[in-house]
Amino acid sequence: MSLDMNLLDAQAPIGVFDSGVGGLTVVKEIMHQIPNERIVYFGDTARVPYGSKSKDTITRYSRQIAHFLETQKVKAIVVACNTASAYALEDLEKEISVPMIGVVKPGAKVATETTRNGKVGVIATEGTIGSKIYSQYINQITKDIKVIGKACPLFVPLVEEGLLQDPVTDEIARRYLAELIDIGIDTLILGCTHYPLIRSTIQKIMGDAVTLVNPAYETARELKELLEKRNLLNDKPILLGEDGHRFFVSDAADKFKVFANSILKYGILSAKVVDAGDY
Amino acid sequence: MSLDMNLLDAQAPIGVFDSGVGGLTVVKEIMHQIPNERIVYFGDTARVPYGSKSKDTITRYSRQIAHFLETQKVKAIVVACNTASAYALEDLEKEISVPMIGVVKPGAKVATETTRNGKVGVIATEGTIGSKIYSQYINQITKDIKVIGKACPLFVPLVEEGLLQDPVTDEIARRYLAELIDIGIDTLILGCTHYPLIRSTIQKIMGDAVTLVNPAYETARELKELLEKRNLLNDKPILLGEDGHRFFVSDAADKFKVFANSILKYGILSAKVVDAGDY
Repeated sequence: MSLDMNLLDAQAPIGVFDSGVGGLTVVKEIMHQIPNERIVYFGDTARVPYGSKSKDTITRYSRQIAHFLETQKVKAIVVACNTASAYALEDLEKEISVPMIGVVKPGAKVATETTRNGKVGVIATEGTIGSKIYSQYINQITKDIKVIGKACPLFVPLVEEGLLQDPVTDEIARRYLAELIDIGIDTLILGCTHYPLIRSTIQKIMGDAVTLVNPAYETARELKELLEKRNLLNDKPILLGEDGHRFFVSDAADKFKVFANSILKYGILSAKVVDAGDY
Repeated sequence: MSLDMNLLDAQAPIGVFDSGVGGLTVVKEIMHQIPNERIVYFGDTARVPYGSKSKDTITRYSRQIAHFLETQKVKAIVVACNTASAYALEDLEKEISVPMIGVVKPGAKVATETTRNGKVGVIATEGTIGSKIYSQYINQITKDIKVIGKACPLFVPLVEEGLLQDPVTDEIARRYLAELIDIGIDTLILGCTHYPLIRSTIQKIMGDAVTLVNPAYETARELKELLEKRNLLNDKPILLGEDGHRFFVSDAADKFKVFANSILKYGILSAKVVDAGDY
């Protein structure tokens, strides 16, 4: 009986959520590192963005989505949004029945291992920067690292407008990053899941001596470790189609599909609209 | 009795709502044209922006807010958001007990009266442009006008980032407006309540021969006319403070206050947070 239960659990999907499409950069990394796992993704496109809203509101939204993912019988939940990880993860971990992983802690860990001069920059939304969560996690590991945060509120709209390589994005990035260059950071955390999509612009401006940290990679690695430890890794290849990955959004499924298919090689057949406010 | 009722109604406030802060440009115009009127404003800052979301979602949000404003015993509701006016006004007018005015119809009317060469441009959110509502209203008045719409999704984030007069805003505006300049429009509707805040940039790029239409002015004029006709104009000066204008938001009241005070000369003492989803 308990063996059966284990088998059942291991084949359960992994829940992943974000304010919109950005979390798909994390999904991509999960699919790459643990390709046998089924994903149930939720993008809160009816209430996007999260980055400029308050802790109370983001916690309420995240709670509703986590409850929705529980109804999908997931075996773990990945909070693939820095703002939600910063504001809501600590509260939700106490309430939700399955293990949860955010993107902030893994990103902080890698940055700590990467820096040589002890100066780490974080670029993210206003919410994530205001929460100071990256410096909290980093300083839990070591007090010897100085963390400098910079909110970059225009990056998400620029990415969503498709200006990935564009003089305007260059100019805005130069303004946001000037301060971090002056301080002489050697490690920069891409603290918002949209930012890996303008990674080359950011790298060009920061220069090759600065290492960019994308928390998505480490998040997928920690997820794999967690599933291994609990004997929950799925050892059977997943089926494509209706029995494979599933994508839910709170609004505008067609638009989501187009963006999602541009990020993931996996052809997303459909995305279903769900009202997160009901959960 | 009916005289008393009329007196009571005339002193009731006017409800105004928007996805966030943009609608305050309409409030400013109402305060200017009918200064005796009390305003109850609702900014849906927990779910902003509306411009990229679907008709269903925007209609649901607008319905909730209209119901909230009904609980505030307003005598009329101004939908001070082009996207909500485009998507939701027609449905809501049938359901809501007080008269409603949107910003689209007044804007369309002025543009029709303004154009000499019969070529009118509209700049707005994706939602408003996709709905083709401006050309519908204009072509109800006359078939002789060609309406050319252009979605400008980066204008709102640029305004909210405070880049009102900035080379980046110039460059983005030049790209969005190039097509309208080529076509030779002589009238341009500012079809989003944020856009009057970058009016000088838009005028500079379009040239002085093009007339910019700000629907806010005409909306306030139509509101005044409506109240006059129904004998609902308030003839007593309003009190300031708690008995004067009232401001509600669904999130981040302090941030709203700062932005609001930069638009309105009237000192906004406080904004209260209300969950629109409850209405």
